[in-house]
Amino acid sequence: MKKRRPKKRTENYKKHAGQVPGTLIYTGDKSHKNIKIESFDYNKDFISEKLLTNIEDAKSFKDTDSVTWINIDGLSSIKEIEHIGLQYNLHPLVLEDIVNTTQRPKIDEYDDYLFLVLKMLYYDADENIVIEQVSFALGKNYVLSFQESEGDVFDAIRERLRTGNGRIRGLKSDYLLYALIDAVVDNYFSIIETLGNKIEDLETDLFEGHARDNISIEVQQLKREILKVRRAIFPLREIINRIDKGEHPLVYKRTLTYYRDIYDHLIQVSENIDIYREMIWSLMDMYMTTISNKMNEVMKVLTIMSSIFIPLTFLAGIYGMNFEYIPELKYRYGYFVLIGIMFLMFLGLLYYFKRKKWL
Amino acid sequence: MKKRRPKKRTENYKKHAGQVPGTLIYTGDKSHKNIKIESFDYNKDFISEKLLTNIEDAKSFKDTDSVTWINIDGLSSIKEIEHIGLQYNLHPLVLEDIVNTTQRPKIDEYDDYLFLVLKMLYYDADENIVIEQVSFALGKNYVLSFQESEGDVFDAIRERLRTGNGRIRGLKSDYLLYALIDAVVDNYFSIIETLGNKIEDLETDLFEGHARDNISIEVQQLKREILKVRRAIFPLREIINRIDKGEHPLVYKRTLTYYRDIYDHLIQVSENIDIYREMIWSLMDMYMTTISNKMNEVMKVLTIMSSIFIPLTFLAGIYGMNFEYIPELKYRYGYFVLIGIMFLMFLGLLYYFKRKKWL
Amino acid sequence: MKKRRPKKRTENYKKHAGQVPGTLIYTGDKSHKNIKIESFDYNKDFISEKLLTNIEDAKSFKDTDSVTWINIDGLSSIKEIEHIGLQYNLHPLVLEDIVNTTQRPKIDEYDDYLFLVLKMLYYDADENIVIEQVSFALGKNYVLSFQESEGDVFDAIRERLRTGNGRIRGLKSDYLLYALIDAVVDNYFSIIETLGNKIEDLETDLFEGHARDNISIEVQQLKREILKVRRAIFPLREIINRIDKGEHPLVYKRTLTYYRDIYDHLIQVSENIDIYREMIWSLMDMYMTTISNKMNEVMKVLTIMSSIFIPLTFLAGIYGMNFEYIPELKYRYGYFVLIGIMFLMFLGLLYYFKRKKWL
Amino acid sequence: MKKRRPKKRTENYKKHAGQVPGTLIYTGDKSHKNIKIESFDYNKDFISEKLLTNIEDAKSFKDTDSVTWINIDGLSSIKEIEHIGLQYNLHPLVLEDIVNTTQRPKIDEYDDYLFLVLKMLYYDADENIVIEQVSFALGKNYVLSFQESEGDVFDAIRERLRTGNGRIRGLKSDYLLYALIDAVVDNYFSIIETLGNKIEDLETDLFEGHARDNISIEVQQLKREILKVRRAIFPLREIINRIDKGEHPLVYKRTLTYYRDIYDHLIQVSENIDIYREMIWSLMDMYMTTISNKMNEVMKVLTIMSSIFIPLTFLAGIYGMNFEYIPELKYRYGYFVLIGIMFLMFLGLLYYFKRKKWL
Amino acid sequence: MKKRRPKKRTENYKKHAGQVPGTLIYTGDKSHKNIKIESFDYNKDFISEKLLTNIEDAKSFKDTDSVTWINIDGLSSIKEIEHIGLQYNLHPLVLEDIVNTTQRPKIDEYDDYLFLVLKMLYYDADENIVIEQVSFALGKNYVLSFQESEGDVFDAIRERLRTGNGRIRGLKSDYLLYALIDAVVDNYFSIIETLGNKIEDLETDLFEGHARDNISIEVQQLKREILKVRRAIFPLREIINRIDKGEHPLVYKRTLTYYRDIYDHLIQVSENIDIYREMIWSLMDMYMTTISNKMNEVMKVLTIMSSIFIPLTFLAGIYGMNFEYIPELKYRYGYFVLIGIMFLMFLGLLYYFKRKKWL
Repeated sequence: MKKRRPKKRTENYKKHAGQVPGTLIYTGDKSHKNIKIESFDYNKDFISEKLLTNIEDAKSFKDTDSVTWINIDGLSSIKEIEHIGLQYNLHPLVLEDIVNTTQRPKIDEYDDYLFLVLKMLYYDADENIVIEQVSFALGKNYVLSFQESEGDVFDAIRERLRTGNGRIRGLKSDYLLYALIDAVVDNYFSIIETLGNKIEDLETDLFEGHARDNISIEVQQLKREILKVRRAIFPLREIINRIDKGEHPLVYKRTLTYYRDIYDHLIQVSENIDIYREMIWSLMDMYMTTISNKMNEVMKVLTIMSSIFIPLTFLAGIYGMNFEYIPELKYRYGYFVLIGIMFLMFLGLLYYFKRKKWL
Repeated sequence: MKKRRPKKRTENYKKHAGQVPGTLIYTGDKSHKNIKIESFDYNKDFISEKLLTNIEDAKSFKDTDSVTWINIDGLSSIKEIEHIGLQYNLHPLVLEDIVNTTQRPKIDEYDDYLFLVLKMLYYDADENIVIEQVSFALGKNYVLSFQESEGDVFDAIRERLRTGNGRIRGLKSDYLLYALIDAVVDNYFSIIETLGNKIEDLETDLFEGHARDNISIEVQQLKREILKVRRAIFPLREIINRIDKGEHPLVYKRTLTYYRDIYDHLIQVSENIDIYREMIWSLMDMYMTTISNKMNEVMKVLTIMSSIFIPLTFLAGIYGMNFEYIPELKYRYGYFVLIGIMFLMFLGLLYYFKRKKWL
Repeated sequence: MKKRRPKKRTENYKKHAGQVPGTLIYTGDKSHKNIKIESFDYNKDFISEKLLTNIEDAKSFKDTDSVTWINIDGLSSIKEIEHIGLQYNLHPLVLEDIVNTTQRPKIDEYDDYLFLVLKMLYYDADENIVIEQVSFALGKNYVLSFQESEGDVFDAIRERLRTGNGRIRGLKSDYLLYALIDAVVDNYFSIIETLGNKIEDLETDLFEGHARDNISIEVQQLKREILKVRRAIFPLREIINRIDKGEHPLVYKRTLTYYRDIYDHLIQVSENIDIYREMIWSLMDMYMTTISNKMNEVMKVLTIMSSIFIPLTFLAGIYGMNFEYIPELKYRYGYFVLIGIMFLMFLGLLYYFKRKKWL
Repeated sequence: MKKRRPKKRTENYKKHAGQVPGTLIYTGDKSHKNIKIESFDYNKDFISEKLLTNIEDAKSFKDTDSVTWINIDGLSSIKEIEHIGLQYNLHPLVLEDIVNTTQRPKIDEYDDYLFLVLKMLYYDADENIVIEQVSFALGKNYVLSFQESEGDVFDAIRERLRTGNGRIRGLKSDYLLYALIDAVVDNYFSIIETLGNKIEDLETDLFEGHARDNISIEVQQLKREILKVRRAIFPLREIINRIDKGEHPLVYKRTLTYYRDIYDHLIQVSENIDIYREMIWSLMDMYMTTISNKMNEVMKVLTIMSSIFIPLTFLAGIYGMNFEYIPELKYRYGYFVLIGIMFLMFLGLLYYFKRKKWL
Repeated sequence: MKKRRPKKRTENYKKHAGQVPGTLIYTGDKSHKNIKIESFDYNKDFISEKLLTNIEDAKSFKDTDSVTWINIDGLSSIKEIEHIGLQYNLHPLVLEDIVNTTQRPKIDEYDDYLFLVLKMLYYDADENIVIEQVSFALGKNYVLSFQESEGDVFDAIRERLRTGNGRIRGLKSDYLLYALIDAVVDNYFSIIETLGNKIEDLETDLFEGHARDNISIEVQQLKREILKVRRAIFPLREIINRIDKGEHPLVYKRTLTYYRDIYDHLIQVSENIDIYREMIWSLMDMYMTTISNKMNEVMKVLTIMSSIFIPLTFLAGIYGMNFEYIPELKYRYGYFVLIGIMFLMFLGLLYYFKRKKWL
């Protein structure tokens, strides 16, 4: 049995004790080096898509009536994040949360913007779940989105913006935010579908007797994955619910129906996760039963073999003794009579075990 | 042990990430091809029952005072669903929910109609639980009902409408909706009765020692079924409760007593499900105990046989040795004395095991 | 191991799907055929006790100031129940609940009466718990009580009414209802006392090693009984609490103290049930441990016997070989030396097992 | 294994069904026969301590401004309790609760007094937990306390009253009640400390391998004790909280800080109980593991002994056969070669088991 | 297996029953003898840091506008604590809580100050978790902090005060309190990180088969540690939440964002603890499975060895008998034929076990 678990990335939970609050320390994967700033500025009638080199270039969008979506990929250059924070007047604690990628999903309401942290989930090439943090700041006419690395689930939204498909171009920033969150949540369904399949595979293997030795390792890993996904997804329900309930002026009433729709999806995902959790705990019970059943089978073979042949061997031993006077040894057919007796005993024991249903 | 589980239908959870919200994608069984539109228009004094070919034909019912029930079987033709949506002014997200048959039971309140999704449960020919989604839209003078396929639990209601039996013809659309939901909920009782019987059968088998090898598979399937039924039924409680509490103008006060009655039934069903759930978890414990008891029995047989015959065989072995000088071998009655000693040992060990209650 | 469980009475949960709501279908034991109507009409100064043949005869009590208790035994004749319903103006759903004896304990508040369903528990001759449904309707100056069969826990109350003992004759219908419910609840204590004794007996048996084979059957039956009792009793807490809190005009403030007293008793009963539940789950764990300990003991005997005699037999086998040249066989005291060596080995192994505490 | 559990005292839960409410039935230990009435009357400046023979003697304290504490030991003489009840105008249900010593901890608010029931816990000489019921009635200028038997935890309070130590003499009856409850609650700490030590002892025994056979009995007893203590203590939290929240005119605002302090202590006790509960459930798991580990060890010894000597015995058996022509038997060194081979097999198997880490 | 658990320090829960409330009894480690009083007095423009010999020396700070932080290390000298209490007008119960180091984390609101107790966690040299109590009193322009011993997590804050780094010097006492609590909470992350690593190490050991005998001891210790940490940390959430919600005049609105940040961190820590708890319970299941699997392996070896050689030995025994007439013994090649048969039986059994996958 070889070591199979991938080297885990130790989580750098947070800044060290006592550091000035609002100190920006990037805790994510340092290999994502470059920052990429992408901007969409649109209204019903026009759209301009640009790759900015500097956040200053976004200034011109600020005072217009059009909706602006600025998407930042890569959080390792603290300075530029601070720069963006200044530009959009974000609280230092908000910036700290953006770059601290072990942040729990949360919502913070500030006077002129709404700040959200959530988790984007996907499977990497090795079938491990990757959890990437995405933060959103929703302002009156803008949405800022911050991701750890390039590559996301928003391509369909970019396309809808460009083509003007659907309602998105005609509505405000609150609808854009909805569309972005909705894309993240929709992706959760594929995650839990994969989890469900993994559990069913384990179950089938167990039932068909392909009980691999390392099945308990796989079960433990699956439990860990489910706990990870749970922790990433469950807090989001509360967040969406708060948007739905809390009458924040930035979210218009007509958009609430859409947020409620996300909420319904999240409940559905959560229910599935809890069902999977119950199934996998129950799987371990099954496995224990399977092991015990196997041991029972092994013991039966041992018992049957021993119970049949040990008494017979004893009988043979009796007539292998060297006493000078053992009358049976002299009988002409002594040997054959004994063989006959042994055969009858053999049959008798077989019958006994048959009746006990051990055979 | 052969593969017994029926091929599961992978659930197509939802539209793919990023799709325009309100995109209608039918996720149910594609084999239900045809759409069938059935209409009842009635008041205290008259009733007209028609099979419509086109939803346009229902227009005439719209502005009358009579109550109209339009029942649609078959959700695969997106276009016609959209058509109906337009006619009755349904929100795009409502239409999305109608055709997305993995939807969780829910209620959405809109200004001029109430939208409900719930689950109709029945056993198919192979004794598998089938979950069919039914959606209702309750308007001022109409109820729309959407089902995945033909065949439902509403026949008794159709009959009551035709014959004018009971209160139904004299009351409004809110009472019709109640009657429809009540029919669905009544059917849950037969489902849980069957579940209960299955559990009792398993229990009896276990107690009587017919411990089939695949009993743990059956237990696991039953757990899965219970989780499935739970997920289909439990959210409905909250929904009915909300109708009962939330003073929606479409539901008259005099009908609330009836909705409360449904609520009571749902609580009763839920309690039963939770009891079954506890029973089945407890069954696995019983099963483990049974296995361990059996192993104990097997071990006792082995131990008794070995403990009796191994020492005796040793004794026989002693006198099978070829030493030139073994005095006992020369004794006239050596053989018989030894046989006697062996018999006493045999009796002694029998007595020992008897006293230990292993025999 | 014989089949021991009594034939269970399949519960006829409810009317069939789609039936007209308010359809009266008696779901209890059909053997209780006759209806018996008993009436008490009293105030501080007089009391009249009658056995009515017809509910019409109760009319005269209706408009007087005195309190009337009408007790109906036997619910199988639907017609007469309907008759009573008409007389006292009961809602059709109320009548449905009265005759549907699988109803969950509940309270429904109507404008001029309060309707309660609860469960009377007792052990039958075979020590099985019987659950009989009792329904009450509390009006301004009357209490109706409906029971499945004759025989109840109200005899002491009848006596108090006749003799005028205690406060009962001087107070209103709300106090009479309290007295009736209190009698039912008091009886719960004897039920849980019996349950408690059964659990203690099982525990003692287990600890003293009388581990009967069917102990797990008894445990399972006890679990089932506890779940049954729980389901019958627990909802009542909520009901009494609602009487206590909800200021229903029919229940006077001075009586509330008494209802609160019932509530306290119910909490006490509930706590005991939950403790028994925990004890019995824990009993199964004990049982598993006991089985494992026994198996350990069995294995030790086997191991000791085998480990001692198998090597000795081998030694004997060595000198039973027929090689032409085995020098030891020629030695004068070869046999005695070998016997000595075997004896030392025997002692050595005994000592080894002693030190391991297996002996 | 002898019967160790002390004969349990069957709890006489309550009056028999149907008895007049407010009927006083003493359910405690009938051996506490005598009633003892102790009185303290005090204010800032004076204190008078008396042993009353009759409750009438307390009359003189009633209308003064001083605080009176009347402590009654022994509840078996119903008549005297009734007498006291009359004197202080206590509700019949209150008196019923005082003498029903299986009462759950509770608080009842009456117009001019506050009634509390709580449980005093201590270990008796045999290290069994004894639960004694103490009831308090708090009036404007008096506190009544009722105990089942003499001997309590209030001696320090009596001393403080006599010496005027602390605030107690200068404050009102609400502070006296606080001091009494505080004394009861402080004593809980020593109970849970003992419980904690018992659990640690069991744990240590288990870890060091002194696994006594009756360890599961001890665990079961400990569980039972914890459940008992839990039931006695947990409801008190709610009670103290209600005093703290509910602005009862008899409890002055300045005393609330003290009641909050009791509440904090109760939370601390509760948390400890729950931790012990979790520890003890976990102990059973440990125990199962220990048993299984031991069985493993036993099986290894058996397997090693059998696997080594059974094949060797077979070899010896081969050359013990009496075939006329077995060439090896004629060889000069046949015997020695065979012994050598057997020794090599022996070493080989030893090495095999060593590598498997079974040795 | 040696005793490994460190000698536990018996917790001296509280003062003895009946003691005057507000009696100061130090329950911590008596070896911390000296008291050390450290003071910081600062505002935006200046800072003065002093080591006081007497609390009187702090008097001068009292009526100024500047913020004063007085940190007391060492709680064993009751008199000096009482002195400080008098100076700052602290309630006797507050002083009792300060020196009672087994206090649960709590918050008490008084008219002119806020009192908090919380727990500082760290690992000592032997990798045992140490829980040190820290109490805070927040006044209008001061923060008092009380610690059991010297050495804390506040050095970074002292540094920030001295250098004027960050916002701290410009804000009020409520921000200072936030900074102190934040430092304590930040340190929790390192605690749970270590816990997480310990669990992962255990898991890896288990999976790779290094199943040390004392693994269940380590698991039990880890469970205990997790329960300890849980108890120290979980109540703090409620406390911070109450500061956040309860509009205490001493905490300014602009600081609330910071307290909310602490709250988020605490939720994150709590979630991790609960996940670890679930992981470790699940670990025990894994361990049981591992043990059972090992036993299965042992049994297989035994069964294979016995099943192969016991029948063969029987065969050899047959031909070792001394009957005068056993025809086979006379055959020229009888021996070789038998050896051949035995070899075939051997192969047959090997094949049988191979097919059963036991080999």
